[in-house]
Amino acid sequence: MWSKCVRRFSTSPLTRVRHPKLRRSPHYATLTDRDISFFERLLPDGRAITNPDDCLPYNIDWIKTCQGQSQLVLKPKTVDEIQAILRYCHEHQLAVCPQGGNTGLAGGSVPVFDEIVLSLRSLNSIGAFDENSGVLIADAGCILQTLDVHVNQFGHTMPFDLGAKGSCLIGGNVATNAGGIRVVRYGSLRSAVLGLEIVLADGTLLDCLTSLRKDNTGVDLKQAFIGSEGILGLITRVALACPTAMSGVGLGLFSCSSFEKILSTMRLARKLCGETLSAIEFLDASTYNLSLKNLQQTNKPVEPNNFYILVETMSSTYEQAKATLDKLANTALEKEFITDGTLAQDLKQYKDLWAIRERVPEALVADGYVFKYDFSLPPARMYKLVEETQKRMKPFSNVRNVTGFGHLGDQNLHLNITVQNGYSDEIKHALEPWLYEWVAKERGSISAEHGLGLHKSKYLELNKGKQSLELMKQMKNIFDPKCILNPYKVLPYKID
Amino acid sequence: MWSKCVRRFSTSPLTRVRHPKLRRSPHYATLTDRDISFFERLLPDGRAITNPDDCLPYNIDWIKTCQGQSQLVLKPKTVDEIQAILRYCHEHQLAVCPQGGNTGLAGGSVPVFDEIVLSLRSLNSIGAFDENSGVLIADAGCILQTLDVHVNQFGHTMPFDLGAKGSCLIGGNVATNAGGIRVVRYGSLRSAVLGLEIVLADGTLLDCLTSLRKDNTGVDLKQAFIGSEGILGLITRVALACPTAMSGVGLGLFSCSSFEKILSTMRLARKLCGETLSAIEFLDASTYNLSLKNLQQTNKPVEPNNFYILVETMSSTYEQAKATLDKLANTALEKEFITDGTLAQDLKQYKDLWAIRERVPEALVADGYVFKYDFSLPPARMYKLVEETQKRMKPFSNVRNVTGFGHLGDQNLHLNITVQNGYSDEIKHALEPWLYEWVAKERGSISAEHGLGLHKSKYLELNKGKQSLELMKQMKNIFDPKCILNPYKVLPYKID
Repeated sequence: MWSKCVRRFSTSPLTRVRHPKLRRSPHYATLTDRDISFFERLLPDGRAITNPDDCLPYNIDWIKTCQGQSQLVLKPKTVDEIQAILRYCHEHQLAVCPQGGNTGLAGGSVPVFDEIVLSLRSLNSIGAFDENSGVLIADAGCILQTLDVHVNQFGHTMPFDLGAKGSCLIGGNVATNAGGIRVVRYGSLRSAVLGLEIVLADGTLLDCLTSLRKDNTGVDLKQAFIGSEGILGLITRVALACPTAMSGVGLGLFSCSSFEKILSTMRLARKLCGETLSAIEFLDASTYNLSLKNLQQTNKPVEPNNFYILVETMSSTYEQAKATLDKLANTALEKEFITDGTLAQDLKQYKDLWAIRERVPEALVADGYVFKYDFSLPPARMYKLVEETQKRMKPFSNVRNVTGFGHLGDQNLHLNITVQNGYSDEIKHALEPWLYEWVAKERGSISAEHGLGLHKSKYLELNKGKQSLELMKQMKNIFDPKCILNPYKVLPYKID
Repeated sequence: MWSKCVRRFSTSPLTRVRHPKLRRSPHYATLTDRDISFFERLLPDGRAITNPDDCLPYNIDWIKTCQGQSQLVLKPKTVDEIQAILRYCHEHQLAVCPQGGNTGLAGGSVPVFDEIVLSLRSLNSIGAFDENSGVLIADAGCILQTLDVHVNQFGHTMPFDLGAKGSCLIGGNVATNAGGIRVVRYGSLRSAVLGLEIVLADGTLLDCLTSLRKDNTGVDLKQAFIGSEGILGLITRVALACPTAMSGVGLGLFSCSSFEKILSTMRLARKLCGETLSAIEFLDASTYNLSLKNLQQTNKPVEPNNFYILVETMSSTYEQAKATLDKLANTALEKEFITDGTLAQDLKQYKDLWAIRERVPEALVADGYVFKYDFSLPPARMYKLVEETQKRMKPFSNVRNVTGFGHLGDQNLHLNITVQNGYSDEIKHALEPWLYEWVAKERGSISAEHGLGLHKSKYLELNKGKQSLELMKQMKNIFDPKCILNPYKVLPYKID
């Protein structure tokens, strides 16, 4: 699936063309034949890739927003090799772009110019699983789904779930503090990370790889690396707390007349489904209709209305997962929070209902060029932003849809604007920085789960303030004083 | 309760007597009359305390292990006042000991020498509670129990619970990443902290006070302060995710013949109680018997054996909380993991069973002077340490009991050695550093939830390694370059 998509998106514009004001920093050395020879000796069997065609998939991001021009992709198999690579790059002032599954949505996972790609894909051994504690140790290059299948054998599950699970790597997930649909149940990925092994920019190994659920001994250094998008160090191994897998699952789809009713249904779900609650998602009518169209589904699962809410429950028994959901459906109907609803009766219906939500990104791509945004907002203000964006986009005849959906339980709104005839600079400038300023004013987040990457780094100060930015730069200076790791990302550079 | 205990422990030895090799750093200024005048003007109405008797409760820790000699206790009511205090101390090189509820167990909450005590007790307004998101904003000086009662009104609960809840302050809880009995259910306190407002050592306000469940924008600075025990900055306000309160509760006490059977019962509880599981605690026979004796309880709740395990369940319905616990009890009996058990039938029995576990610290104090340890260990090795300590203590006739109990579900062992006739240097040296080295060798933690404070700071390197220690010092240098905050704690100083 990954390589297919790369081919599909191989027309992605060069990052330096899309961002003409962004300049390669002269601070970094240019790759020489001598460097290449060093890496070819270090990584035999073709694990130092220089052929441009073979480098291409590592230069283009998943959603065709960037294309870097790296001439060297390294695929180490061991932590020793990673240390040797970084030691060399540090000494020779060579910039490095760490790469996991390259499924990121913020332009953070591909080089901007000629940074060396350090792919974690081949560092992929699954370590021990402790059945007493439910803790898994795994190399950074393990695929999320592979790990989920592995811990399922022991009656456990991975503490998060997201669309890219078949491609994304656990190291990248941790480096970006990946979100997804189960944050309602298990909290953020950060909270499941018990230990990390990290290679710092100069090749030093930082061992924070404990498997302990509690460890209050000094400043918790590993926290700095979680969600820092590879700018502070390279995560090579993780220890994760894996919750007990639940055998009973329930899923309901409900239609509501207003966003206020959506919020009332969510509050009711928290109360009535209690500990069984595992996901709360919402879609507005535009998103829902686009998704049904994309799925070629003509029969409507529920009576149409302006909004739709999906509530999932999970329990150690099917009866309990079903019972709490039934109670929600009945009470919400009685209170007139919802106008209609359907509950999945078997695994097929469960998958079909989830598909409406999970395949939204694909439905949007089918509708046109997509301007994608990923905000956190106080619940009462979440949908207001979609409405204001709809108004703002009115004058643009090439805008097809302005839609809102997302992880309602985590106040995470995905706002998307689909446009006919491809990318438009004019629309971009009508949206940005207006959107980011709107969100900052509401004390929301300009990136709930996608990270800042390349695309949003220049708005960090707007979101976090000058002082936080200054402190982040000082932290960067501790861990990567020569700034060789993932340059031009996260911390703002002057770009257009 | 707090003031009563302070009186009880007012015979605590001076810290400089207990640690004769620990020297006051000449780096810090000595308090002058001019300084005192400044603070008296800043904090009128007797909020700058200089009377030695009134300063005493702020100089002595909860478990009478330390007594500092501060001559000034400050009780600011506003963040502005805190900023002014720290600005002044920073400028004049005056050392400061931030203090919450002074319920810490590691000597971290009281001054070592003459540091100025900055008590957060009077900064105690409860802010907004958002019913849609379940997020509470509160001042650092709010008492945990007060906040719990507050959010209960909205059908929510605080995400952690511990013995000191009637005295401890939320700011101190966050600064020490407090643990307690519900980590099994809600994860660590860290994971519930969504936002923090912090005053840095120089008086600057660092605003990380968002109420968002997801916010992936740059390095997550607030993480550095959680669990850093006041050495990086002063937490003044917190935003916490509060889970839905559960109305149904179940509690079972079971006896087991071996620690292996305890572990088997725990694994079974995870599987059968699933999402309803809310606490898993264990006690060995010595702890259990001391506790029953202290409670003056002559009738045994269950048939005696070598170990006891408490399992609590919580659900939105009482029936479900009871059903999963019944299933556990029946299956564990059938499989011969347990030899006997009792399930609480009403609230009185629930409280009585919990008292056996919760009042252990009090039972230990009644048994003699207590050497307290708080370790995290891989489950399979947890009880081995108690056995080895028992062997090691054999030659000492003044040792009464070597007992193990704790938060089994989090691999958190509380090891306690009770001694006749008060503190003994000889026993201390037989225990330390031997215990810390044993734990470090097993890749455990020398402080699971209590923190390092003064008592364990010198073992930080043993636990985390030289390199982590070096990086922590660099972080300290960013946030508190003049080292005025909570000196002699957490990061190691040369002490005996």
